[in-house]
Amino acid sequence: MLKFGTRIKRERVGVNMENEIKVVLFGVGPLGVAIAKAMLERKGMKIVGAVDTAKDVVGKDLGKILEINNTLGVTVTDDVLGSLSKIKANVAIIATKSSVEGIYPELTMCIKSGINVVSTCEELSYPYYKQPQLSAEIDELAKKHGVVVLGTGINPGYLMDALPITLTGPCLRVDSIRVTRMMDSSKRRIPFQKKIGTGLAPEQFEKNIREKVITGHVGLVESIAHIAAALGWTLDSIVEFPPEPVIAKKETTTPYTTVKPGCVAGLKSLAHGIKGGKPVIVLEFIANALVEEEYDAISIEGIPNVNQKIIGGVHGDVGTVAVVLNMIPKVLNAAPGLATMKDLPLPSALNEDLRVYLRSYSS
Amino acid sequence: MLKFGTRIKRERVGVNMENEIKVVLFGVGPLGVAIAKAMLERKGMKIVGAVDTAKDVVGKDLGKILEINNTLGVTVTDDVLGSLSKIKANVAIIATKSSVEGIYPELTMCIKSGINVVSTCEELSYPYYKQPQLSAEIDELAKKHGVVVLGTGINPGYLMDALPITLTGPCLRVDSIRVTRMMDSSKRRIPFQKKIGTGLAPEQFEKNIREKVITGHVGLVESIAHIAAALGWTLDSIVEFPPEPVIAKKETTTPYTTVKPGCVAGLKSLAHGIKGGKPVIVLEFIANALVEEEYDAISIEGIPNVNQKIIGGVHGDVGTVAVVLNMIPKVLNAAPGLATMKDLPLPSALNEDLRVYLRSYSS
Repeated sequence: MLKFGTRIKRERVGVNMENEIKVVLFGVGPLGVAIAKAMLERKGMKIVGAVDTAKDVVGKDLGKILEINNTLGVTVTDDVLGSLSKIKANVAIIATKSSVEGIYPELTMCIKSGINVVSTCEELSYPYYKQPQLSAEIDELAKKHGVVVLGTGINPGYLMDALPITLTGPCLRVDSIRVTRMMDSSKRRIPFQKKIGTGLAPEQFEKNIREKVITGHVGLVESIAHIAAALGWTLDSIVEFPPEPVIAKKETTTPYTTVKPGCVAGLKSLAHGIKGGKPVIVLEFIANALVEEEYDAISIEGIPNVNQKIIGGVHGDVGTVAVVLNMIPKVLNAAPGLATMKDLPLPSALNEDLRVYLRSYSS
Repeated sequence: MLKFGTRIKRERVGVNMENEIKVVLFGVGPLGVAIAKAMLERKGMKIVGAVDTAKDVVGKDLGKILEINNTLGVTVTDDVLGSLSKIKANVAIIATKSSVEGIYPELTMCIKSGINVVSTCEELSYPYYKQPQLSAEIDELAKKHGVVVLGTGINPGYLMDALPITLTGPCLRVDSIRVTRMMDSSKRRIPFQKKIGTGLAPEQFEKNIREKVITGHVGLVESIAHIAAALGWTLDSIVEFPPEPVIAKKETTTPYTTVKPGCVAGLKSLAHGIKGGKPVIVLEFIANALVEEEYDAISIEGIPNVNQKIIGGVHGDVGTVAVVLNMIPKVLNAAPGLATMKDLPLPSALNEDLRVYLRSYSS
């Protein structure tokens, strides 16, 4: 986003923070609900609006949907424009769809309303590769309205892009990067286990792949393009392989189902960034019910080599909520435009009282 | 550095990059030499000046000091002002002293000459805690002259601050952080082994500690203050323990000396950041000749826990050169003032041809 020779002048241009960050939430599915609950546990962050199209939530108080004891005085609405015209929000969190096209209407409405956007839309984490034209439009619109747009989350957004990029920091040279996320799917939510084909016979799994019922991890292409951009690499191509089933050799039972030998215990998602005819960026996401040791590993070949492991891995659901909230202050302080994680300051955990940041601001 | 409510306006204010980054190097000791050699291996970076006070280097061509076959047409000088008035540099790399006061003269001269500064001065990596007044002055001066000042390196600057900060990114809550750097000192340069008291009898080691001949790792206090600032923590205090000897139980020989049983094999540096009466940030740097497994480990207790390890650790000398050079583009694109690693975008390895960044700039 920023390039050599662009000197930034710091100038306050009318951002009125008052004493808390006002957030409008798009999407009150499981992820939106988790994000909202985490926001309620913080001082200095306030939910001022909630938008969703699902008929069973529209018209309800958000407090009811979060299943907390209070009402919040925020009614879920499907009227985006009406909502944005009534509330004064600093940032919108969009936790709805995985594609840029899918979120484009509400994204642009937020931008035109002068609201910064943080979204879990996987394609938005690094959209320049697959949608250069749309990316340029979003960037220009965001700059015009003086707001920042960021796609992020635990993956894509951190584990397979921001963190490996950061681990190249002590390298004089990088030749290749391999990132492996090894996850025990038996511990994950039941919809996730179902989504990866747990318990299916191999033929049914392959049928579901062909019919795109099973899609594997979304975001590997974006993460590869993101890493390449950070390193200044022009890739020949990015190859995303169809998800591969992990076949159980022995029976195993999860809270979702029992997996019989010869049946699918989970899947492996794999993608390559190719340069000079060789895979220089290899991202693999392995989620199955037979994993013995969970981990997130990043292996960099270069000068020097860096072999890093997060023992036990990082929990995906908690991590996504955390990264989204933790990036809000970085977004609020960034230069307008379409940002990606590589452009923003180091991610870091928020103090539970955001007003500590505001106190230093006002002094 | 940046605070909520400060919207940045991006505006080009006269930075003329031409087609390469021009660097003036302060300090042609082992570190400066290593930095210079790495710069020569890159396209798009040019050394335009070299400053040192040591009589055996002043007046010599830098190429001779680097022991390469060419002369570089850069004569080492001890005349700072004269040098800065003649050359047009975009960035100065200051690799001389560990204290802010020690580098203050050349630092301020560079700033007033409109030159950005990246320095390995350990105290500069996060100077706000120990020298708040001096920090405020440097920040104001840098803003006035439209340049950025950054202290960095592998440690402090990355391993025990920037990287642990980044690893809190997926955390909803952080309760405590422990960073351990375990280094086999027998593989390090002889001056380093000597500096940590390798081979000494314990009494001589303690005497050298009292007389400050042995000082242990410089930067733990800065790293703790840096992490606390990133997390919005106000610490009760930062406690730096005197270096502790690591006593050999069995004999071992290094390229420097033979360590007899009962003698010093190396040392452990330890510091605590105290909050609510308890150590919430614990940094330990252990360097000795009996280490069997080198590693850099970061352990975060919170929601979730994050247990990370770089197997084999990161080589200090290579890492410092890399972090310094890799941060140059981030510094050139940052808002003027005194920056620290937490304020800047993710560190990342440079493409060996920096002009790939410039090409996208000019298109």
